[in-house]
Amino acid sequence: MRFSRLFAPTLKESPADAEIPSHKLLIRAGFIRKKASGLYDILPLGVRVLLKIERIIREEMNKAGAQEVILPIMHPAELWIESGRWDAYGKEMIKFEDRHGRNYALGPTAEEMITDLVRKEVKSYKDLPLNLYQIGRKFRDEIRPRFGLMRAREFIMKDAYSFHASDEDAEREYWNMYETYSRIFSRMGLQFKAVEADTGEIGGSFSHEFMVIADTGEGKLVFCEKCGYAASTEKAEAVKPQIPENRESLFREIEKVSTPNVRRIEEVSEFLNVPQDSILKLLVYIVDGKPVAVAIRGDKDVEETKLKNVFKAKEIRLATDEEIEKFTGQPKGFLSPINLSIPVYADYSVIPMVNFVAGAGEKDYHLKNVNWERDFKVEAFVDVAEVKGGEPCPKCGNPLTEKRGIEVGHIFKLGTKYSEAMNATFVDENGEEKPIVMGCYGIGVTRVMAAAVEQNYDENGIVWTPEIAPFEIIVIPVNVKNDEIRETAEKIYEELKSKGLDVLIDDRNARPGFKFKDADLIGIPIQVIVGKKISEGKVEVKVRKTGEKIEVPVEEAIERALETLRELQVR
Amino acid sequence: MRFSRLFAPTLKESPADAEIPSHKLLIRAGFIRKKASGLYDILPLGVRVLLKIERIIREEMNKAGAQEVILPIMHPAELWIESGRWDAYGKEMIKFEDRHGRNYALGPTAEEMITDLVRKEVKSYKDLPLNLYQIGRKFRDEIRPRFGLMRAREFIMKDAYSFHASDEDAEREYWNMYETYSRIFSRMGLQFKAVEADTGEIGGSFSHEFMVIADTGEGKLVFCEKCGYAASTEKAEAVKPQIPENRESLFREIEKVSTPNVRRIEEVSEFLNVPQDSILKLLVYIVDGKPVAVAIRGDKDVEETKLKNVFKAKEIRLATDEEIEKFTGQPKGFLSPINLSIPVYADYSVIPMVNFVAGAGEKDYHLKNVNWERDFKVEAFVDVAEVKGGEPCPKCGNPLTEKRGIEVGHIFKLGTKYSEAMNATFVDENGEEKPIVMGCYGIGVTRVMAAAVEQNYDENGIVWTPEIAPFEIIVIPVNVKNDEIRETAEKIYEELKSKGLDVLIDDRNARPGFKFKDADLIGIPIQVIVGKKISEGKVEVKVRKTGEKIEVPVEEAIERALETLRELQVR
Repeated sequence: MRFSRLFAPTLKESPADAEIPSHKLLIRAGFIRKKASGLYDILPLGVRVLLKIERIIREEMNKAGAQEVILPIMHPAELWIESGRWDAYGKEMIKFEDRHGRNYALGPTAEEMITDLVRKEVKSYKDLPLNLYQIGRKFRDEIRPRFGLMRAREFIMKDAYSFHASDEDAEREYWNMYETYSRIFSRMGLQFKAVEADTGEIGGSFSHEFMVIADTGEGKLVFCEKCGYAASTEKAEAVKPQIPENRESLFREIEKVSTPNVRRIEEVSEFLNVPQDSILKLLVYIVDGKPVAVAIRGDKDVEETKLKNVFKAKEIRLATDEEIEKFTGQPKGFLSPINLSIPVYADYSVIPMVNFVAGAGEKDYHLKNVNWERDFKVEAFVDVAEVKGGEPCPKCGNPLTEKRGIEVGHIFKLGTKYSEAMNATFVDENGEEKPIVMGCYGIGVTRVMAAAVEQNYDENGIVWTPEIAPFEIIVIPVNVKNDEIRETAEKIYEELKSKGLDVLIDDRNARPGFKFKDADLIGIPIQVIVGKKISEGKVEVKVRKTGEKIEVPVEEAIERALETLRELQVR
Repeated sequence: MRFSRLFAPTLKESPADAEIPSHKLLIRAGFIRKKASGLYDILPLGVRVLLKIERIIREEMNKAGAQEVILPIMHPAELWIESGRWDAYGKEMIKFEDRHGRNYALGPTAEEMITDLVRKEVKSYKDLPLNLYQIGRKFRDEIRPRFGLMRAREFIMKDAYSFHASDEDAEREYWNMYETYSRIFSRMGLQFKAVEADTGEIGGSFSHEFMVIADTGEGKLVFCEKCGYAASTEKAEAVKPQIPENRESLFREIEKVSTPNVRRIEEVSEFLNVPQDSILKLLVYIVDGKPVAVAIRGDKDVEETKLKNVFKAKEIRLATDEEIEKFTGQPKGFLSPINLSIPVYADYSVIPMVNFVAGAGEKDYHLKNVNWERDFKVEAFVDVAEVKGGEPCPKCGNPLTEKRGIEVGHIFKLGTKYSEAMNATFVDENGEEKPIVMGCYGIGVTRVMAAAVEQNYDENGIVWTPEIAPFEIIVIPVNVKNDEIRETAEKIYEELKSKGLDVLIDDRNARPGFKFKDADLIGIPIQVIVGKKISEGKVEVKVRKTGEKIEVPVEEAIERALETLRELQVR
């Protein structure tokens, strides 16, 4: 491809609404353009990346025995009504009517559509298992779309759904997909972790998220370098501490202290000169409409997804100040667990606490030497704290490592949630009719492109891994008006092309600095620079990732470029 | 691929609502399933065909210098309002609101979306030309979807749009696309014709349709085997006849004859014993709300698209019986051009007519020896008859050939219709701001699949061309319980796969007849049948298209299969 013909409008400045590197860089480097809130045009460079991502996904899914289908984007409402999600899905699902007044959704996910297909065709256990996938557009009407492709309203997704005659077979396929996803993201050259994850809205019995590691990621994960345990912090389990032996013998008497205007844990800690882990944090949540107090060690944070799962709740949220007063009769910031009119659930971290500080239930006062059981009733000890780096691994006790990441894939063992709701059954070996056991497996294709940038960029632009780069090599003649430079560059370009490489030549009549900036910004892994030294028979091979430049004789340029590319691919 | 794992549910019977061969066969052979009116699930066999079609399109479009983009399916209403098509497009466009009440359309075509992208990025003639295309879902809410993929509400289309600094350059690209489309359909192994076509709703100055030849096609075309002229009958021009010399000298006196209950041309012809081409057919059309009489030779048909274009009308339709009475005061079936209160436009075919029969303007009477000009005024002679096979070519006079076909591609020279409406301009060499000149080019991807079947099927099923077949070769062991048969078939299968061929093995434990029926129905070009003769070291190679079967020694099977495949590809 010739840069002079390429539609890749690069920009000097980032757009004002771009907050994260991938959003800024994909726009600046001419990969995408915003069409409207949460809607993006993908330009030729972006399409090249997406086609490579899709190709890797397609090859690995096919190899794993999955088969590609294409389902309509227009989803008839009846199917969503059957599954119970027509109303439950909420406002993220776009609904519309056709000219005859029939209702449809723009598919945000396709469990209903695929279950409908399979229930009509599958009769017997002999027709199972099946794993069907599609790669295509999905729609979620985010209330505030942001972060570019990361949280767009229209995006490309690979969604797969598997169907089985038994739970064991569904589990076998789950791990087949786990391995397949690992191969897919490895082949893309990305650093990632598969972590145990919350099953969320989709439902089902267990799931893993595939997270691309990046400091800018919205998600957090912890993993154990010793035993391999890895989990999203939405799911990561804390080790349940022991109750201190003879704890009653340690109890001191409650002491009420004046703490004027001292509310937050940090303030209490400083004012009373006690460490944060000796203070009880008490929060009021509204769990499916009912108030609940959650006690947690002062230095810890509640992980709301874990809390939601503990209560098997549909919706949880922090109570407002007014609600706190109304439900407890106590002022916010001085809440006491003692004589509290709503139930207190305590995080595991409270178990070992003895003689701790808590609110006094009246403004400007705290209590010292409070003890659970002696002074207040704990409804139950629950695991609701966010697990952090350095805490012990729940499997082996080794300290956990914490990272941020971007969810790019998610696999679920669904069970029979959809097959039961939609009457998708099969007849087993014994002639018995049973619901089909399902799994589902998604990859955010456009999101992978953004996540790859979040993981691989520097101050000069994007640094693509060779496997998904829009081009593998860019040839840069620094001055196209110099015949020797231009002709050498063209020769190298043609030869690289003839070897089957994806090559771009910057044949534009522009200043060298301008070309170098664009090449770095776009992030093609290898640059072959043909400059003035051509008079001595030399060209430069530059590695975008390291900035390393080596001068080589022109006849070695191609071999060196290929070798460097291979080194990047091996990693 | 193994048939035992393939999700290809074949059926013995065609669905009741399937009217045409492609609809019946694609469902019966397990390529598609109906989800709802005009919406289809595409199953793995169908996806395999579509991916091959898309690959050919992508390769040829890229080779031609076009660049792939991906535009949102959600089209903001503002853009369609700007072009004036938000209201004009009509009910075929599906409209909806997002959660904030903003309006969108589900893209039926993307002139507005792409023009919006290009107008923001293109400033100068140096940024031109550009040809951008996408392959993706389109939506048209047909009032009565039918014919399966042929006229679905959701379908896959390749749409390309080109942008130019001059009319000449737009024309150059038009012919570039003409050649590219010819290569695309040739590579698919389809018989097709590029025909001059009506520009329809899209507008623009001229256009060609690419029609796949098939007896079941909805479209008609005529072409000249001598000079190459080819046109859709919606566009095909008639040769303008000469006015007979001394025609007045031939005039006879008008004679009124009783024709009780004789209305239609065939009836009049029989009753009066005059040939149909001596009778004047008079029709009343409502052209943009106004009544107009159209006179045409009795054996000819009005081509309404040509008529619409003659009047540059938005809408034309035949008048109802009531309207005819109201506007002419004459009874239907006996309309006379004489003293008619509405203007008479006469088709070219009327020019040579002398002493013809026409209605008398009163019930149960006709007139003989009517002559135009002497007896009634012709507003204008116009070319509105459907050109038929056997008529002279308008370019060279040679008799035309007539065929039916299916429109699978359409190219348009758009001009500045959209760029002017949407203010998409560029600055030319002289610093002058000008509207960008555009072209647009579409291929109905899912429709190509259906059209390929309409052209290539027989009583046993589909006959795919090798280039777009879901598999190139199927290996059929007639009995998988026979070790020698099974193992030989597996060996042939593996060897064909290792040569990079797309192979299916029917490894199902089923009767030979059942397997043969499925193989024929699905339509894979070459069958390698491993049967009992394996004991003599022989297998059969069958060509699906001809039914020809040859027995070959097992060691020659692969070579013979490949050779036969190549022969089919050369054609």
